[in-house]
Amino acid sequence: MAEETTQNTQKVTMEKIVSLCRRKGFVFQSSEIYGSLASCWDFGPLGVELKRNVKDAWWKDMVQSRDDMVGIETSILMHTQVWTASGHLKNFTDPLIECKGCQKRFKGDEVEGKVCPSCGGELSEPRAFNTMFKTHMGPIEDSASEVYLRPETAQGMFVNFPNVVTTTRKKLPFGIAQTGRSFRNEITTGNFIFRDREFEQMEIEYFIKPGTQEKWFEYWVNERYEWYQKLGIKKDHLKLHHKKKEELAHYALACADIEFLFPMGWGELEGIASRGDYDLTQHANSSGKNLKYIDEEAKEQYLPYVVEPSAGLDRAVLALMCDAYDEEVVEGEERVVLRFHPRIAPIKAAILPLSKKEPLAAKAREIFNSLRSDWVVQYDDTQSIGRRYRRQDENGTPFCVTVDFQTLEDQQVTVRERDSMTQIRIPIASLKSTLAAKLAGEPMTQGTVAWKSGEAVKE
Amino acid sequence: MAEETTQNTQKVTMEKIVSLCRRKGFVFQSSEIYGSLASCWDFGPLGVELKRNVKDAWWKDMVQSRDDMVGIETSILMHTQVWTASGHLKNFTDPLIECKGCQKRFKGDEVEGKVCPSCGGELSEPRAFNTMFKTHMGPIEDSASEVYLRPETAQGMFVNFPNVVTTTRKKLPFGIAQTGRSFRNEITTGNFIFRDREFEQMEIEYFIKPGTQEKWFEYWVNERYEWYQKLGIKKDHLKLHHKKKEELAHYALACADIEFLFPMGWGELEGIASRGDYDLTQHANSSGKNLKYIDEEAKEQYLPYVVEPSAGLDRAVLALMCDAYDEEVVEGEERVVLRFHPRIAPIKAAILPLSKKEPLAAKAREIFNSLRSDWVVQYDDTQSIGRRYRRQDENGTPFCVTVDFQTLEDQQVTVRERDSMTQIRIPIASLKSTLAAKLAGEPMTQGTVAWKSGEAVKE
Repeated sequence: MAEETTQNTQKVTMEKIVSLCRRKGFVFQSSEIYGSLASCWDFGPLGVELKRNVKDAWWKDMVQSRDDMVGIETSILMHTQVWTASGHLKNFTDPLIECKGCQKRFKGDEVEGKVCPSCGGELSEPRAFNTMFKTHMGPIEDSASEVYLRPETAQGMFVNFPNVVTTTRKKLPFGIAQTGRSFRNEITTGNFIFRDREFEQMEIEYFIKPGTQEKWFEYWVNERYEWYQKLGIKKDHLKLHHKKKEELAHYALACADIEFLFPMGWGELEGIASRGDYDLTQHANSSGKNLKYIDEEAKEQYLPYVVEPSAGLDRAVLALMCDAYDEEVVEGEERVVLRFHPRIAPIKAAILPLSKKEPLAAKAREIFNSLRSDWVVQYDDTQSIGRRYRRQDENGTPFCVTVDFQTLEDQQVTVRERDSMTQIRIPIASLKSTLAAKLAGEPMTQGTVAWKSGEAVKE
Repeated sequence: MAEETTQNTQKVTMEKIVSLCRRKGFVFQSSEIYGSLASCWDFGPLGVELKRNVKDAWWKDMVQSRDDMVGIETSILMHTQVWTASGHLKNFTDPLIECKGCQKRFKGDEVEGKVCPSCGGELSEPRAFNTMFKTHMGPIEDSASEVYLRPETAQGMFVNFPNVVTTTRKKLPFGIAQTGRSFRNEITTGNFIFRDREFEQMEIEYFIKPGTQEKWFEYWVNERYEWYQKLGIKKDHLKLHHKKKEELAHYALACADIEFLFPMGWGELEGIASRGDYDLTQHANSSGKNLKYIDEEAKEQYLPYVVEPSAGLDRAVLALMCDAYDEEVVEGEERVVLRFHPRIAPIKAAILPLSKKEPLAAKAREIFNSLRSDWVVQYDDTQSIGRRYRRQDENGTPFCVTVDFQTLEDQQVTVRERDSMTQIRIPIASLKSTLAAKLAGEPMTQGTVAWKSGEAVKE
């Protein structure tokens, strides 16, 4: 592992991330004023923009930019037979062990064969606990009205496979993608938004001709592994875990996890599974519907095989926060900075007038308004410039635009970059194009504008 | 009502909309292969892009473009005390009446004092039925583990009011906004996606200084009324319903509904309610937390008043579908066209090569690829140009770009506009800027490009 990476993972702890998230408005505990609801979380003003940016990047890259993918959005409540066919009703269970002494409950594999970690008491035999949330639809609470909150969005794609083929006339190979909330009644949760009971997924079911699964499995493992790096995650913080034959579900042909080095250790971001025709076979048998694909070229009919890249959005957000987190000492003071890739940064630029007074404020507002149709930008005129820079560093804002008294005379502003703290002075007329180029990755030291260090605002 | 409007509302029926939605992939029934799940719906490939566009337009206009608004995203499962405090546990009920003969259940106000509409049997007295979906969190199903699926997103904003004030340092007046799914276990549902058990909301809680509620109520009623027109809904199809004193909830100071003329009649799109400090008072009392706002300027502390514009996203999508739907006869054949505003159209342009052969296909792909980083565009090379135009009309695609053999020689393409079917021939080099201008509302007959009718592809 590179030295820089090691340093960074030593700096960031889960406590620091949770505290920063709370203090800056990235993530709050659900129902906090009532003592919070275990393992449910709310995204605050900065967090919701970060989450939206990650989700939108996935949608743009995986759906809108591809000819071989369509999106859908299915309901959280689905027909119970979906879960019978998929095997979730029977098999989506965790072994639950109870302490005969203090009645505390544990996930089986954590305590099996031991004594209660809480009171030292004797533990029960494990029993299968189904982790789907159950509710009732309609005014009678009986078994006929039972419905479940989906534990994954994937089944929404499988049961809509015939609808999508009919309405879009897509030919294999093609995929169906969706993002949305799923629910798992986990016995033990933890690690902030890494494992919560309510979470958001980004899932793809990619339908292929049987026999081509090895090629497409490899393709999707690479595609998704690279995607996280494209969003700025350091390569050293990612690894692939190819599952061994004995680790696979009985129907799975292959499976690989993309893992990220969280402060608590390596954890799964996404699983890519080669599932054969297991799911479509189950639904064809259970529904009695013909779900076969008609291959006009080969003059064949068959159930397609499936490769499933299944990602957790909340985990991706947490990984991006941890990966971006940095601390350094600048002029004797500690600076906390979130080095977000510009594409996912909640705020792209902050406009900072040196004074609240007119005509400076009006000029700054004018600049602010000229940028806001293109980007999420923030106007901040309280406290010292230094304090405001630090505030934006903690927000992960890539650029600060400082409007000073000189601006009124020379129509120039100072643009300060978050990571390097480099400052350049440029004409207002070229601010938009300069920001666009730099948000797209152009380095601060390059460009068409003159670099006048003497006029820069002191850090 | 204008003649054109009357004509349009005569053409569109709910049956036509449901059928078009199913056939083109806008909306499917949930779990269709299992006979569907009542009043839950899935958005298909076109529907999900339409829905995303409406939601993104709301987010951009109501959150990102405003200084006085921040977004959040809260969990669907919340602490049960939230619903005790808000009054939902006690009062969020429908009167339920059961037939003593056939056991069918009805919503009280629909059948009260009558005989069973199904079998003519005697009806029971109404009883209060709580329409929140209940589930259990954790491994024991008892009253202590009961949690509810939120029936509205609004409470997520109220309980986060202190978190947002602390982390954003916002001053009154300001709002908190969110979009997200909510669930109501309605006794009777219907009218397609107008009233479903799982639906998506777009809600704002706008916090103001007590005494200013009349001004802000009026402001939000106008703001939201205009927003629907901005998305293209005809003014004649919208009306405001100001509720009378006796129609209001006991705590409400004023309430107005924005209604749309659906095929089945006028129906609510959005409610704007002036709620005083009811919600914050309830949560302050129930949680024991101080939720007062510190007004530094006035040197006062008080619970803010709230104006709440609460919109249904699925209803907005349905209204936009109905409003856009049109039929007309073109050259002896009926044409069905969805006249979507370009901002919400699922596909902005379709690229249609006149032939699948090279080098024409390569040229068309090149043009397609040059547009797709900016917009959702579609490539379609199957069947006749006329059929492809009709297909895109039904998708609501504003522009078709036809690539013909002449294109290879003169580097020009034909752009055909959906509503007027006007065609202009323009250089490929100016295609992107022309589409950008026309998607932003510039009429087809204007522009810097030459109009060469002789070269246009015949409709």
